[in-house]
Amino acid sequence: MVKHLALRIALVLLALGQLKPDARAADQSAPAASNVPGAPTPTLSPDRSISFTLRAPDARTVQVAGGDGLGAGPFPMTKDAEGMWRVTTPPAVPGFHYYWFVLDGVSVNDPSSETYFGYGRETSGVEVPEAGAEYYALTNVPHGELRAKWYLSKTTGEWRRAFVYTPPGYDGNPKTRYPVLILQHGAGENETGWTRQGRAQFILDNLVAAGKAKPMIVVMDCGYATRPGMPAVTFGPDTPLSDALLAFSTFEDVIIHDLIPAIDASYRTIADREHRAMAGLSMGGMETLFITLRHRDTFAYIASLSGPIVPNLNSNQSLGSVRPSDFDSKTAYEGAFANPAEFNRRVKLLWLGVGTAEPELFRAGIGAAAKALKTAGVQLVYFESHDTAHEWQTWRRDLNDLVPRLFR
Amino acid sequence: MVKHLALRIALVLLALGQLKPDARAADQSAPAASNVPGAPTPTLSPDRSISFTLRAPDARTVQVAGGDGLGAGPFPMTKDAEGMWRVTTPPAVPGFHYYWFVLDGVSVNDPSSETYFGYGRETSGVEVPEAGAEYYALTNVPHGELRAKWYLSKTTGEWRRAFVYTPPGYDGNPKTRYPVLILQHGAGENETGWTRQGRAQFILDNLVAAGKAKPMIVVMDCGYATRPGMPAVTFGPDTPLSDALLAFSTFEDVIIHDLIPAIDASYRTIADREHRAMAGLSMGGMETLFITLRHRDTFAYIASLSGPIVPNLNSNQSLGSVRPSDFDSKTAYEGAFANPAEFNRRVKLLWLGVGTAEPELFRAGIGAAAKALKTAGVQLVYFESHDTAHEWQTWRRDLNDLVPRLFR
Repeated sequence: MVKHLALRIALVLLALGQLKPDARAADQSAPAASNVPGAPTPTLSPDRSISFTLRAPDARTVQVAGGDGLGAGPFPMTKDAEGMWRVTTPPAVPGFHYYWFVLDGVSVNDPSSETYFGYGRETSGVEVPEAGAEYYALTNVPHGELRAKWYLSKTTGEWRRAFVYTPPGYDGNPKTRYPVLILQHGAGENETGWTRQGRAQFILDNLVAAGKAKPMIVVMDCGYATRPGMPAVTFGPDTPLSDALLAFSTFEDVIIHDLIPAIDASYRTIADREHRAMAGLSMGGMETLFITLRHRDTFAYIASLSGPIVPNLNSNQSLGSVRPSDFDSKTAYEGAFANPAEFNRRVKLLWLGVGTAEPELFRAGIGAAAKALKTAGVQLVYFESHDTAHEWQTWRRDLNDLVPRLFR
Repeated sequence: MVKHLALRIALVLLALGQLKPDARAADQSAPAASNVPGAPTPTLSPDRSISFTLRAPDARTVQVAGGDGLGAGPFPMTKDAEGMWRVTTPPAVPGFHYYWFVLDGVSVNDPSSETYFGYGRETSGVEVPEAGAEYYALTNVPHGELRAKWYLSKTTGEWRRAFVYTPPGYDGNPKTRYPVLILQHGAGENETGWTRQGRAQFILDNLVAAGKAKPMIVVMDCGYATRPGMPAVTFGPDTPLSDALLAFSTFEDVIIHDLIPAIDASYRTIADREHRAMAGLSMGGMETLFITLRHRDTFAYIASLSGPIVPNLNSNQSLGSVRPSDFDSKTAYEGAFANPAEFNRRVKLLWLGVGTAEPELFRAGIGAAAKALKTAGVQLVYFESHDTAHEWQTWRRDLNDLVPRLFR
């Protein structure tokens, strides 16, 4: 206890005095914005190379591993005489990258980093600035609020937490009503992803301040849901897509029967299809297409960000075995696109995006679907994020392109 | 990339199918509520013993260490033939305990746990239920909202984030105005502590639903602040208290000149001293007494939860060398208590609390100050949390006792 007390007191004083580490003026590197306050590493150099450290005098091997944008790791670290392991990686792709140390074979977080929910667990992350990209920065403009909203789900029988972004001026204009964007994270992530990793609230603030987007409410829920007593299904990479989509149907009920009514009851929404959008990234994009194309009476704006395309909802194919050429605009998504004129009249926006550095499964499938739909006469926006991978910088750019197109 | 993709797809499917691990009906143990969804360990047994696991086939030693309520650790783990390390600790004190693994000498988080900001970094935590204690549970009552509010500080020159709890019915009653409680975390923690570890929002929801507390706005800010260009001061455990308090004075300016005006401008507060309280735990209690006793024109309700008492703000003593007998009610806190009748007339509540299992420095100092103040005729509430340490269960109980006394 005395040791803990001394540690706590030391921490008070250290935190008070040393929140701002000395600037590394000599080599122009600086601690990453994603570090915990006061942590000197990781540091970013102007060329976007990243230096990592970990004190582990007794370790035999330490590596840095992480998201695609970090480069072709893992990167072996080397130990100095004081037991500090170090490595400087090659210049990284701009944006947010998950990372972790592999310490004698065990994946562990960097104590110097904030944590971000990804890969089904809390994970370290490093923010690599993109030159000239201010659109996701915390700038001197009016800011909305980010609200944690608890609501009871009849579908799951449990309280759920959604995050709700209300735009600048929401409280000050009590007669104004707003359109709603439901915005979903990817696999292994949760309802915190779009604001912690994606900085969605700042992208919205900046777009609204610049007059580029309509003020709107953004709702971010957790994309997993199970019914009470639902038997645990043992899925694997080879599981038929139809089984995965059966699981999505629980989330569909949460969105349609629980979340939307709770939001419309709690916030000053414009509660009709012309003022309701849904978008999601990766798994969230799959969920968005699955749910919105079944509920075109509920949503007029639809966006899938790097979301794998499912040619046949009822097939026994696995996701990995889908071929882009399987996509048939007449039959895909239960025939939602079979009558392009009707679709174009009802759906105000269909938006599909992908990063050019994403794996073939994403690029080829999304590109083929976009091409087939256009050929069939379905109006859509197809957006490519250049040189970014299946990572958050792609989805930040996506959101920055998408939001100005909503509710026009 | 392909490996990542396969991992991501597996995660989608795993997360969908296995969010609810099989109940361990046979031994009646269950995964801790503080685990990430689907993580099977740590598990809690009915006797409050905790079982931890970590897969680390190549590690030489692994231990579990953490907060006082876990018991007299660190607890050595033992490795089975598959490389899984395990230990079951003795029955723990109820409540929330920080913990971590010591893996070949390096402190690392448990990938199965959510993370909680403590000790100046993201840390694993385990929630140990207390029999019969429902007051901090997420129950079927109306819930307030928890809002992330960004505001620009003139004092620091930077945007800061505070969390603002608005009570149930806030949006539905646009003419109603509310009193404000400013509620601060401890050393090494931040503005997330009171809701992540402390569950303050649920304590408020339950008290309001039971009619035991007035609906109020609760504001939780980060207790660190540095002025632009402020030189880094190298503090240590032996630093004179007067230097620490000089650092508190920056936070004082943030509270008085930046935060309170921002809150009063953004929310329907009752913006007078009779409807404004400040409370804090440990370092936050030190800050509360330092700030509120200087600003009795701003605050009528004052609470220090396990906050070390500072007999002489201008002394060169270090915190560790303060003796309880040094406390003199005539001179302490710049003479704030010198005229007990005047103090009692102005200050509606002075509340001091401590856990009976806390270290001597806290218990003796707070107890001696409470006794000296009462002897001098200063009215106060002195609250003891039985058998809990310098940990969150003490502060949850404190809040549950304190909130019903506010704004009466």
